[in-house]
Amino acid sequence: MGGDHGPDIVVPAAVEFLDKAKDTLLILVGREERLRPLLGDKARHPRLSLHSASQEVGMDEPPSKALRSKKDSSMRVALDLVKQGRAHACVSAGNTGALMATARFVLKTLPHVDRPAIMTAVPAVNGRTHMLDLGANVDCTAEQLYQFAVMGSELVRAVDGLQAPRVGLLNIGEEEIKGNEQVRQAHELLSRSSLNFVGYVEGDDIYLGDVDVVVCDGFVGNIALKTSEGVARLLAHRLKAHFNQNLLTRLSGLMALPVLRAFRKEVDPRRYNGASLLGLRGIVVKSHGGADVLAFENAIHIARKEIQSNIPERIEHEVAAHFVVPHLNLSSVVAESADPLSGTAAAGQQQRAIA
Amino acid sequence: MGGDHGPDIVVPAAVEFLDKAKDTLLILVGREERLRPLLGDKARHPRLSLHSASQEVGMDEPPSKALRSKKDSSMRVALDLVKQGRAHACVSAGNTGALMATARFVLKTLPHVDRPAIMTAVPAVNGRTHMLDLGANVDCTAEQLYQFAVMGSELVRAVDGLQAPRVGLLNIGEEEIKGNEQVRQAHELLSRSSLNFVGYVEGDDIYLGDVDVVVCDGFVGNIALKTSEGVARLLAHRLKAHFNQNLLTRLSGLMALPVLRAFRKEVDPRRYNGASLLGLRGIVVKSHGGADVLAFENAIHIARKEIQSNIPERIEHEVAAHFVVPHLNLSSVVAESADPLSGTAAAGQQQRAIA
Repeated sequence: MGGDHGPDIVVPAAVEFLDKAKDTLLILVGREERLRPLLGDKARHPRLSLHSASQEVGMDEPPSKALRSKKDSSMRVALDLVKQGRAHACVSAGNTGALMATARFVLKTLPHVDRPAIMTAVPAVNGRTHMLDLGANVDCTAEQLYQFAVMGSELVRAVDGLQAPRVGLLNIGEEEIKGNEQVRQAHELLSRSSLNFVGYVEGDDIYLGDVDVVVCDGFVGNIALKTSEGVARLLAHRLKAHFNQNLLTRLSGLMALPVLRAFRKEVDPRRYNGASLLGLRGIVVKSHGGADVLAFENAIHIARKEIQSNIPERIEHEVAAHFVVPHLNLSSVVAESADPLSGTAAAGQQQRAIA
Repeated sequence: MGGDHGPDIVVPAAVEFLDKAKDTLLILVGREERLRPLLGDKARHPRLSLHSASQEVGMDEPPSKALRSKKDSSMRVALDLVKQGRAHACVSAGNTGALMATARFVLKTLPHVDRPAIMTAVPAVNGRTHMLDLGANVDCTAEQLYQFAVMGSELVRAVDGLQAPRVGLLNIGEEEIKGNEQVRQAHELLSRSSLNFVGYVEGDDIYLGDVDVVVCDGFVGNIALKTSEGVARLLAHRLKAHFNQNLLTRLSGLMALPVLRAFRKEVDPRRYNGASLLGLRGIVVKSHGGADVLAFENAIHIARKEIQSNIPERIEHEVAAHFVVPHLNLSSVVAESADPLSGTAAAGQQQRAIA
């Protein structure tokens, strides 16, 4: 089990999760001798099982090396279980690059998807905003940005229940003259698509909530997300320092403690932990490497929601509708498109997620 | 006068500035009939003069159009005054694209500088961080990123008085395997340079302050900056909402008011308003279009500091040292390099800035 803390975080998060999600089975993949002591008598939990894996992928290990030489890593074994239909989703706090490369290799991408993308939700003044790609794809073509938009829009439709999520394209100016070549071309494609495309949005729009899906390449998305974390940390640090200045300010901080706690809880990034790898023939959720128990548990809940919503299947249909036969009506598209995942998450059936 | 508010902001900011900076003359460029009523009896201020310009550049006007058809815009006339040596700096809240295009056309870039860059300072946990480019250059070569690093480092040396500013290259991973082609090549160039290059930094490092200059292309830099504004606004909005929830929380907010005010003042983005256009044969400072009086005044103070530090001259020398004769020692470089700006800001002489 990867991440900065491995089983020490994943095991208690799994136990917490099982208490809340009574319809889900969990398979913990890793070294049994590490997992059993952490589980204690929870090891006999009826909805929990262990699956052995003898290796781990290092957080700084090059993806290609992990793929080649770590065939019994917890990451690889968990993805193999999804591939074999023995699990419906994989949740990992491990090395992002290795997870993406291994997931692509094991699960394969959906038909007509060039490259999978990583998506997450962030809080906004009005509701929340989803953003992709967050680092899987450094350079993207206009067509790939369009694919991200389709996948992201479909996930938001499924998970947040919005009829027509508003899709924005991240750019440096709202005027159509700005931006780089790929972004301008993507604007063209999206304008002509059936998506609810609202045009260009800028960095500050991400946190306004006037758009549901923000599309960008992985380089820009990753930097926007990390920058956001940095700003939030700076502001928290400064606010704390101001309240700690002297006895009087400390006292006023004490008075304001319930408010400050409620505020902190609301904007807690752990509540948004869990990024979805979209465009694969299976569900994979990436937890932040430094996630704690609450944060990792949140990532498992995201995987569960995606199982319930049949995300890969829905995305496959949607991508086909946009990229294969855009001029046929939807019913004929559905009839034509093969569905390798049908049955993996049939309604009413007990569902599984793997940590 | 451009910006979202024009002379209504610029005029009072100029008056405030003159009260504080007794060594500086200001020339207000714009429609006299608009400026005089706003100035009142300050129009007779001994260190203030008016210079007429009959046009304005619209905030959404394409730069090429502004350049072609607005030859008597306040922006163009102010830059002409700098070009003619009648002023030492131009401060504008106008259309960024038009300002950059007009400044390049009127002032020209320094020798060996491919493209000017826009730089600003942001607050950090430790001190402050400078960042460039912020939107002047959407796609950048590795060589251009290296030039930005040289210019940014020299500005920080001059203005913040640091001997060897730590320069970081913005990327999506600290490992050397990540990032796009240009960024990887720029890493090579910077590693071999005489700059104090600390390697790759990520988005969250911008606000830590373990690096003095963060280098990136304008697309990424602009999005990082705007995203930061968005996060800060979201957090302020949520914090306020929590304190406004009910009578009790309002009361605790009242108790905490001095602390909250001090905090707000410290992280006030207006205190960081004013982005420098680097690489030109003259000083140009861009104020945020939506700047208020305090923010615009701050931008004029930045221009004044750059005049005092002979920024264009220093950057010219430094760029020559890196890109022309990197193997000669500095004294011979200085002797060789022509200096079109010498004398424009001689010490002791009264200095000017144009708004």
